Amino acid sequence: MADMKLYDAMRTLRAVRRLRPDPIPEDVLKRIFEAATWAPNGGNRQPWRMIAVRDTAVKKRMGELYTAHWAPYAANYARGLAKMSEDEAAKHRRTIAAGDYLAAHMYEAPVLVVVCFNPAWLAVTDAQQDRVSVVGGGSVYPAVENLLLAARSEGLGCVLTTLLCAEEPEIKQLLGIPAEWGTAAMIPLGYPLGQGHGPISRKPVGELFFNGRWGAPYP
Amino acid sequence: MADMKLYDAMRTLRAVRRLRPDPIPEDVLKRIFEAATWAPNGGNRQPWRMIAVRDTAVKKRMGELYTAHWAPYAANYARGLAKMSEDEAAKHRRTIAAGDYLAAHMYEAPVLVVVCFNPAWLAVTDAQQDRVSVVGGGSVYPAVENLLLAARSEGLGCVLTTLLCAEEPEIKQLLGIPAEWGTAAMIPLGYPLGQGHGPISRKPVGELFFNGRWGAPYP
Repeated sequence: MADMKLYDAMRTLRAVRRLRPDPIPEDVLKRIFEAATWAPNGGNRQPWRMIAVRDTAVKKRMGELYTAHWAPYAANYARGLAKMSEDEAAKHRRTIAAGDYLAAHMYEAPVLVVVCFNPAWLAVTDAQQDRVSVVGGGSVYPAVENLLLAARSEGLGCVLTTLLCAEEPEIKQLLGIPAEWGTAAMIPLGYPLGQGHGPISRKPVGELFFNGRWGAPYP
Repeated sequence: MADMKLYDAMRTLRAVRRLRPDPIPEDVLKRIFEAATWAPNGGNRQPWRMIAVRDTAVKKRMGELYTAHWAPYAANYARGLAKMSEDEAAKHRRTIAAGDYLAAHMYEAPVLVVVCFNPAWLAVTDAQQDRVSVVGGGSVYPAVENLLLAARSEGLGCVLTTLLCAEEPEIKQLLGIPAEWGTAAMIPLGYPLGQGHGPISRKPVGELFFNGRWGAPYP
């Protein structure tokens, strides 16, 4: 389990939101964290830092802040199900139920990983475009994806969340994050309560890739 | 080679900027692209599309646009070397030379992958923070990292670039990208001219991870 084949890890990396409170052995955690350090990033500045949170009181507060944003998000999500087929809606209801579980049990995850980044260390090449900027994330989320893939390979459940970024000022205060740093993600890590990772549902290559120019069918 | 172990792929994923013009077999490309589709993303909306560019004239124009931004970037980068030790500076000079090569030979890469995203499909939870936003990238760059890792596993050189985002209006016109979409990255793919992937230089876990709160040594 600890060192899967690349494609097997990728094609079974699900969002696992129900986690057991059992501790994660230090050597396992170390391998997962090292995988994050290997990620590509602009100018090899590695403009991110991650904090492994294990204190129950801190995790409880993070769970409360998360719930405050999850609850209205989930309610809005649920309203959208009315337009779906029953099969489709049932799938999304399971996702919402898993999200509810995660929000309510956040403190039980043995480790919450908070991902920080330094805006001053980023080359934000899309800063002048008339739309939301994303390019700074190009030096942060490859490390997050490495961490998730490594967790999956080690048999640990995990999910990439960003709701707590809306509570950045309090998260920074709670964890002593310096003023000049921002937060980009929070990843709960723990052994799965249920079946954990497995098949995922994604669009096929033909819907996501174009050949030569926008709209031209691939391949 | 085609299906490496996860950790081996990650720890040897270098930026490979010198690429041979030899074509990439369709089945290889298909596996790499499929790996991108598996990536986690917010609400499973998969808010990205990628365009595989192979037309020489289009690649030449992209190379010109890239060079216009690379040249001043490299000059600024080179000025920073004066403050470094000779060993350190030599390493960075090799990176700059490889970047010069990539800019001048962009059209020789058999495939240039242009990554697009739809801002309207993103939940940008850090939009209200008083700093550059990165969270939108959380639904885009995990797919990019999957693509890079798969390319590495297939023996293809690749590098994550974002300089062309500064030329987004012309890139969109060149490739027929709809007004409401943005561009997040461009990845040249091709078999390595030299040794290709191999050992990387990154900070250790102890410099990038904290235990419980900012600044507390991990582990």
